[in-house]
Amino acid sequence: MKKIINDPNQVVQDMIKGMAAAFPECIKHLPETTVIVRKEAPIHHKVGLVSGGGSGHEPAHAGYIGEGMLDAAVAGEVFTSPTPDQVLEAIKAVDGGAGVFLIIKNYTGDVLNFEMAAELAEAEGIQVEKVIVNDDVAVEDSSFTSGRRGIAGTVFVHKITGAKAEKGASLEEVKQVAEKVVANVRSMGMALTSGTVPAAGKPGFQLAENEMEIGIGIHGEPGIERKDIGSADEIAEELINKVLADMNFSDGDEAAVMVNGLGATPEMELFILNAKVQELLAEKNINVYKTFVDEYMTSLEMAGCSVTLLKLDDELKELLDAPSKAVSFKI
Amino acid sequence: MKKIINDPNQVVQDMIKGMAAAFPECIKHLPETTVIVRKEAPIHHKVGLVSGGGSGHEPAHAGYIGEGMLDAAVAGEVFTSPTPDQVLEAIKAVDGGAGVFLIIKNYTGDVLNFEMAAELAEAEGIQVEKVIVNDDVAVEDSSFTSGRRGIAGTVFVHKITGAKAEKGASLEEVKQVAEKVVANVRSMGMALTSGTVPAAGKPGFQLAENEMEIGIGIHGEPGIERKDIGSADEIAEELINKVLADMNFSDGDEAAVMVNGLGATPEMELFILNAKVQELLAEKNINVYKTFVDEYMTSLEMAGCSVTLLKLDDELKELLDAPSKAVSFKI
Repeated sequence: MKKIINDPNQVVQDMIKGMAAAFPECIKHLPETTVIVRKEAPIHHKVGLVSGGGSGHEPAHAGYIGEGMLDAAVAGEVFTSPTPDQVLEAIKAVDGGAGVFLIIKNYTGDVLNFEMAAELAEAEGIQVEKVIVNDDVAVEDSSFTSGRRGIAGTVFVHKITGAKAEKGASLEEVKQVAEKVVANVRSMGMALTSGTVPAAGKPGFQLAENEMEIGIGIHGEPGIERKDIGSADEIAEELINKVLADMNFSDGDEAAVMVNGLGATPEMELFILNAKVQELLAEKNINVYKTFVDEYMTSLEMAGCSVTLLKLDDELKELLDAPSKAVSFKI
Repeated sequence: MKKIINDPNQVVQDMIKGMAAAFPECIKHLPETTVIVRKEAPIHHKVGLVSGGGSGHEPAHAGYIGEGMLDAAVAGEVFTSPTPDQVLEAIKAVDGGAGVFLIIKNYTGDVLNFEMAAELAEAEGIQVEKVIVNDDVAVEDSSFTSGRRGIAGTVFVHKITGAKAEKGASLEEVKQVAEKVVANVRSMGMALTSGTVPAAGKPGFQLAENEMEIGIGIHGEPGIERKDIGSADEIAEELINKVLADMNFSDGDEAAVMVNGLGATPEMELFILNAKVQELLAEKNINVYKTFVDEYMTSLEMAGCSVTLLKLDDELKELLDAPSKAVSFKI
């Protein structure tokens, strides 16, 4: 295992320390928790937004904390759901009296633990609502999931609900726009290599030297197919076709595109893939309103990528364009 | 070779296509060149800023084009200097009548080719000045360099000269502030694995499973030492000590810190390293004004990192904080 770490069992604590030390102008670490919150939290009368999940997906989720996006992110151990008590701490820390909204990726552990935390918070008099993100069209049910998995499309949910909450929307209005994003966002990924969980010390799976896996999950969960590595153009076509098959675009509809690196893929390759993605969307008369190419939701040092499409209307465009001061999503 | 590409000999052209397609609101591709320029270029009466170099370091350099940073980036083949004719095209495209300033990393080919382009431009009546960035304290002279190499500290030169030029400074004033940054910025890197140049098809060098190289260059040029992988704390200490030995900090001086991933290193590991970097600087009574943790100057899919310190005064702080709309350095 080649990693820049200290104790493999302390990576999450060490990472949180380094994050909080990096961006004190924007975030703070809630002492004795694995929760990072917006510096100004709680914000009086603003709906508080909480997300999180297992670690290893950085910059998700703490990188999306800041004005115009999240109020808190809860970090579990690597690829492991955070516990309900940690989520509860986050909820309490960002409750400004207008209620708290949870953005949960659809993994059984995450859903259970966030829901349990919501119940505990409600017992303490905090109003809590949630949305469950399930944008990954690759497979139904998976290693840790009943239904579809939540992957990089979650970042669009953070951005858009964050903008809505920042404008002073009510908990119910935030929930409505979150559900609109979830209904209109789809993703699919692929991998060339596996990441290595530090405490495990060896790669989560093996792919042969000339092999790729289409539809893989962000924890290395099985995808659709393993086969010889295709060209960037072929990969783009396969991902886009499967994503579009699950969406309802009409001629001239607008979309936001996210080409997301999974950790070890050079930006060069993401741009090469993007060239074909844009060409394919143009052929289908889908107007690309805005494109994002970077690492947004990773899987440790996995080589690979995902493509996300978000179908836009005027409300979603306005909220996507609204200012964000989150460290990893500045607009 | 596991890569998301089409023809290995066309990666730069394909990448440029995908970049330009991604961010049409900010940049445009100069047809039949490997030059990307700011959408509004040339800007009347503003000093035009041009940087560039071999490809494979993305988001450097095109990611730093935009309001408040560069006006153009010239892309060479992977790890290969761009030719003078391409640099000349960039200079001509961004000349708004106030002269053009070149930011060159100290590699023999880059220096020669940018200087030759400058001469050609001057022959056409365009005033050109330059700065050569040599922030890497690891070694004197290297595979492609006489003197010290230019690495991630170059991004601070882009940011600060970009802000200066945006405020309407003259070519001479831009040059002065660029030289101030170069005089006050130092970096050093380390690697755990090598990147693979697509056209070569195999890794540029080999490190054993438990081996790291301290002081390595961003093209895999030899560093100071190969040895067993140390802890993140040990790596931070080794990099910071060598960088500080070449700087002149007094108690209470302020610095900007950049912890830069070289391509395949998860952000988690960069944050773990940063925790120790901040601790060491605090011990030495250096006040950290601002920290940057991300991939800024990569080496394809090399696993590793670099640490950069920039000693700040009031002018540099103000310029560092000035707005930037560059895709990969938004402030």
